[in-house]
Amino acid sequence: MQLPQGLAPMTPSTADALAAERAKAAFSVAAMNEFIIDEKTRTQEAKMERIMAAEPETFSVRNKYFMSRHEKMEHALKIGRRLIEMARAGEITSDEITTADVMLDINGPFGLHRAMFIPTLESQATDEQKELFLKPSLQYAILGCYAQTEIGHGSNVQGLETTCTYIPETDEFEVHTPSIRACKWWIGSLGVTSTHAMVMAQLVVGGKNYGPSPVVVPIRSTADHSPLPGVTVGDLGPKFGFNTMDNGFLMLDHVRVPRINLMQRYITVSRDGRVSRPANVDPKVAYGTMVYVRTLIVRSMSMALARATTIAVRYTSVRRQFAGKADRALSAGEESPVLDYGMVQYRLVPLLAQNYAMYATSQAFASHYRECMAELGRGNFAPLKELHATACGLKRWMSDVALQGIDTCRHACGGHGFSQFSGLNEFYANQYPNIIWEGDNYVLSQQTSRFLLTQLRALRTGAHVEDNQTTQYLRRHLTNGRVAGEPRFAGKSVREMAADPQLQLDVLGYRASSMAAKLADKMEGGQSWNRSLVAMQRLSDAHADYIVASYFRRHLAKLPTSSPLLPILNKLAALYFLYVLERHPGDLFRLPAPFTRAQIVEIEELLAQQIADVREQAVPLVDAFGIPDMSLNSSLGRSDGRVYEDYLQRAMEDPLNREDTGPAIRAEWFEKYYKPVLHAADNKKQAKL
Amino acid sequence: MQLPQGLAPMTPSTADALAAERAKAAFSVAAMNEFIIDEKTRTQEAKMERIMAAEPETFSVRNKYFMSRHEKMEHALKIGRRLIEMARAGEITSDEITTADVMLDINGPFGLHRAMFIPTLESQATDEQKELFLKPSLQYAILGCYAQTEIGHGSNVQGLETTCTYIPETDEFEVHTPSIRACKWWIGSLGVTSTHAMVMAQLVVGGKNYGPSPVVVPIRSTADHSPLPGVTVGDLGPKFGFNTMDNGFLMLDHVRVPRINLMQRYITVSRDGRVSRPANVDPKVAYGTMVYVRTLIVRSMSMALARATTIAVRYTSVRRQFAGKADRALSAGEESPVLDYGMVQYRLVPLLAQNYAMYATSQAFASHYRECMAELGRGNFAPLKELHATACGLKRWMSDVALQGIDTCRHACGGHGFSQFSGLNEFYANQYPNIIWEGDNYVLSQQTSRFLLTQLRALRTGAHVEDNQTTQYLRRHLTNGRVAGEPRFAGKSVREMAADPQLQLDVLGYRASSMAAKLADKMEGGQSWNRSLVAMQRLSDAHADYIVASYFRRHLAKLPTSSPLLPILNKLAALYFLYVLERHPGDLFRLPAPFTRAQIVEIEELLAQQIADVREQAVPLVDAFGIPDMSLNSSLGRSDGRVYEDYLQRAMEDPLNREDTGPAIRAEWFEKYYKPVLHAADNKKQAKL
Repeated sequence: MQLPQGLAPMTPSTADALAAERAKAAFSVAAMNEFIIDEKTRTQEAKMERIMAAEPETFSVRNKYFMSRHEKMEHALKIGRRLIEMARAGEITSDEITTADVMLDINGPFGLHRAMFIPTLESQATDEQKELFLKPSLQYAILGCYAQTEIGHGSNVQGLETTCTYIPETDEFEVHTPSIRACKWWIGSLGVTSTHAMVMAQLVVGGKNYGPSPVVVPIRSTADHSPLPGVTVGDLGPKFGFNTMDNGFLMLDHVRVPRINLMQRYITVSRDGRVSRPANVDPKVAYGTMVYVRTLIVRSMSMALARATTIAVRYTSVRRQFAGKADRALSAGEESPVLDYGMVQYRLVPLLAQNYAMYATSQAFASHYRECMAELGRGNFAPLKELHATACGLKRWMSDVALQGIDTCRHACGGHGFSQFSGLNEFYANQYPNIIWEGDNYVLSQQTSRFLLTQLRALRTGAHVEDNQTTQYLRRHLTNGRVAGEPRFAGKSVREMAADPQLQLDVLGYRASSMAAKLADKMEGGQSWNRSLVAMQRLSDAHADYIVASYFRRHLAKLPTSSPLLPILNKLAALYFLYVLERHPGDLFRLPAPFTRAQIVEIEELLAQQIADVREQAVPLVDAFGIPDMSLNSSLGRSDGRVYEDYLQRAMEDPLNREDTGPAIRAEWFEKYYKPVLHAADNKKQAKL
Repeated sequence: MQLPQGLAPMTPSTADALAAERAKAAFSVAAMNEFIIDEKTRTQEAKMERIMAAEPETFSVRNKYFMSRHEKMEHALKIGRRLIEMARAGEITSDEITTADVMLDINGPFGLHRAMFIPTLESQATDEQKELFLKPSLQYAILGCYAQTEIGHGSNVQGLETTCTYIPETDEFEVHTPSIRACKWWIGSLGVTSTHAMVMAQLVVGGKNYGPSPVVVPIRSTADHSPLPGVTVGDLGPKFGFNTMDNGFLMLDHVRVPRINLMQRYITVSRDGRVSRPANVDPKVAYGTMVYVRTLIVRSMSMALARATTIAVRYTSVRRQFAGKADRALSAGEESPVLDYGMVQYRLVPLLAQNYAMYATSQAFASHYRECMAELGRGNFAPLKELHATACGLKRWMSDVALQGIDTCRHACGGHGFSQFSGLNEFYANQYPNIIWEGDNYVLSQQTSRFLLTQLRALRTGAHVEDNQTTQYLRRHLTNGRVAGEPRFAGKSVREMAADPQLQLDVLGYRASSMAAKLADKMEGGQSWNRSLVAMQRLSDAHADYIVASYFRRHLAKLPTSSPLLPILNKLAALYFLYVLERHPGDLFRLPAPFTRAQIVEIEELLAQQIADVREQAVPLVDAFGIPDMSLNSSLGRSDGRVYEDYLQRAMEDPLNREDTGPAIRAEWFEKYYKPVLHAADNKKQAKL
């Protein structure tokens, strides 16, 4: 298919419009990129971009939007196999494979082997078991998955029904699925790929249940991949997204495995059926892994939102619609870029501020995590609970903001956001599970709130309270766990608050503290846990609003005060702060020392100014995220601004249009469906039209 | 693939749990169905359900989730062809074809021929043109589409670039695409199907531009479907949803058509190039069609949300997770249905109230529309502007609530919401365009707000103001367009408001009126249109909150006061009211006569009570929507409650698992991807595991 000859060029061209936005940059985009993206990410991405660009026959994802699920999976397998070859050859690391998956937005079937099977062996296997299972896993001589969730049991791990019963007669465990409800479900890499499953099952020895424990069960032959006896296993079908992954189901019919297959680092079953737990391991270390996974989600959500804001900001800078409504002069015949409209700015620019806050938080939180792990190494388990509670709150907050943000970006692109070529649809669907897995966001907020309420109770009763970032702010704004006296920002105007980082933190800290105190009062007054759940969501988010602001600030503090990056970063931080306030006027009116109506109006006015101001730097700000076109895989977000040319080109590449495939499909459809309709007996006479 | 033998039954079974919920019904589900669903919908759906159930080989959609885009389109073509045959045979009407499409959630390639091409001919063609184009269209001897949007011009119809230039030498029009930006884009039924396009183009006669006018352009041969000379046409590729539709692009390279092809009812070009507009047609009637399409969207959004609430309410009634946290006694060993948790209730139960309000509004608004059209027929154009403004506000409100509601329902189903078998994903994506087409929701709110502001200005200046539902409430709550004195609900407790329909309307009407007055003040004080856009969104929604409440009440007023349906319906209306208030505390604090903090607390407490109360009737309330299992196409929402059995069954039907297809695919993948990984030279020695 060819474009008609003699089409006039677009004036002004979208490429020129994007270049003009770039020319407005008031800071060094490269320096900003170095500051906001952590070094490891930058290095790995640059390396993998280079490697993948050199092998487009394997790694090009331009055609992914045309693929069926079957083709998507095969594409992912091809990429997965090649990356494993490279890793075997020592060209890339296992970590870099993950980086490639993220860059391509392809979650391949080998993924859970690396992400869950191997880490479980590393943390829960004895040395003997490592030799037996970990070593071949690292060589990909066996392929594993982590089979915990059951079709009827998601959040409630204690309620799992699969059993692992010790059979002393043969020195084996019998692993069994008692009912449909116990069918293992959602297990990544299980549907087609795995030869082994790490099955979480109720450990039963001598008739006694010792609770869920992981046991390695071979499920498919490594010789030819056929399911082993007693194993019913398959792919669980198409999903909203993530269709490159073979999430699967598994039922085990009295399957026997040797005793050594039960992970024995934290629990041991002896030949004669005695169960013991080693004394020298604190079970709390298990928290560490959960927290670690959530630090990864925090990081990946920053990157996910950045992909969307990059596309939407670039596109709305070059998309033009109407003239004379936006407050900026136009040349004759020109229409306004839609990013000049107040409502488009209101939807996108605060997302940019949140996105910068997320990246900064992801770095600062990772540091905090490493410090806590170092303490743990010194035998100090004290920081764990706060770390866990904050990780839960941040995971929820980050994934909610990112998912809603991607959706907002899609809608801000207007109708074209709905095309797969926008890069925002398959991507959105692939990111969606982040609000569900590793703790459904609605469940996680309970962990965060429970911790806050426990600290408050301790403060109120005078019990021992650890010193950490959470208790510090609770103490700063409460007296003995209760609201008392004036807040620290009393008498300040909103303009003063927005200009002063400490006041920003004080407002957000006071808000979260007083919400916690109010909820504690109600629950002490008899309000049930179940009736407190809505308030717990809000409390968890208010805590996260504060924590994110605090980490953002901590990261900015790394810059010298003379840094030319600081002016725009401080604007973003103030914008983040004002946006939190503007969306929660109800909270502000209900503070023990409430905001006035005049202050609420001031917030709105200041926010609008700040948004209009930051809008001028929007393109340089997304450029600084440094996301390559290969990852964006988007007509609308192209770095060269050649939006419509690429969009039309991609359409022409659709199998329905391509010269090598289109005519045959269309001819077949014409014979089968169109001709019978157009040429029906009673309208033949009309068919000459 | 077979299930293992000897699986224990689930106790309690999900089917029994759903039956137990049904047994709690405090009203007649059948009577409620008759009251809440309009008769036409009920009748047509029952007929089409019967017809389609009798031909599963054509109409079964159970397998749609496994289909590639190509297969989806072919499936839709097969269904479309069969429905046209039935219509030709006089078995069904054109309207009933649309009903079938909605029930199956399949938007077929013949759709826009009926929805846009034919209606445009009906309203804009002269009698001679009807004979030429409409007659063969009704016989499907030609297939049309409506080509308005261009790749660079969506909302701004006046800015379209395609030209239609009169060539007096040959008595033809030359229709031409000047640049890529003018490429027709998004046009439904264009990608593969249409033989003719109704092209919206700038009419140029004698060098003068008369603005966008529709002209019929033949684009493909009716004999063999090949594109005609000068026509570049194709499908525009995969989308987030709606992939059964062949949205297409079109470029015309100086294509000539006879003069008669320009639609001449509202504008005429004579042989000698004189342009005239008939005097006897009021251009405002064009409003009528736009409003009509929006009444259809209002109705379809009620149905869309109902599908989602049906699935989510049924599933959360039988899904169990944890024990001892929800405030209801359990049998030993039982876990709580997740709908017993406060947070799940808070997310789903208000959606039920909104859903009932939407259905009621859709009926009451349709009546209002018919009354206005009758006035129009009598030459009275006065009601048109209010009708149009309210239709814009309702379309935005309904599609936003429905889309967000479907997403909420999906998430409330937990991880299983992410499976295509939930019925909530492809469906969500197919419904998504409703927030964009027929006016992007962000643009539509400006229409509504502009109307409110114009009325207010008239009230303030003493100019003439029509009497209608909007001006009535503005007058009731404002004095000469300004806030003055006490509101009509002064001194009332929230409990009194929630119990009194008139007070509910007064609170919502006062809120919208005072928001309008405040915005008018600001704009009179110099705030620009562009800086007022955020406030306009909120004003439009506040207006819709009021209008929906008012229509809901009007529909309830049709029941006798003794009706056994009224107790639960009144609870739903009060819940709707309280939920609006609870989500907008900032508005309430900022009213000229603000709510107190004690009242805000009262709102939250009363809402929580009302939600817990209505939860007991949740299953009967969704049963009353009467959506057949064929439409739900969902494991989770099955009316018999056999959720997990069907879910597992569907997974086993995946091509990767089926006996006839699975082994070959898996064997091929093993050879190509798994074996090279598992049996690499350096790990052969491990492969015996």
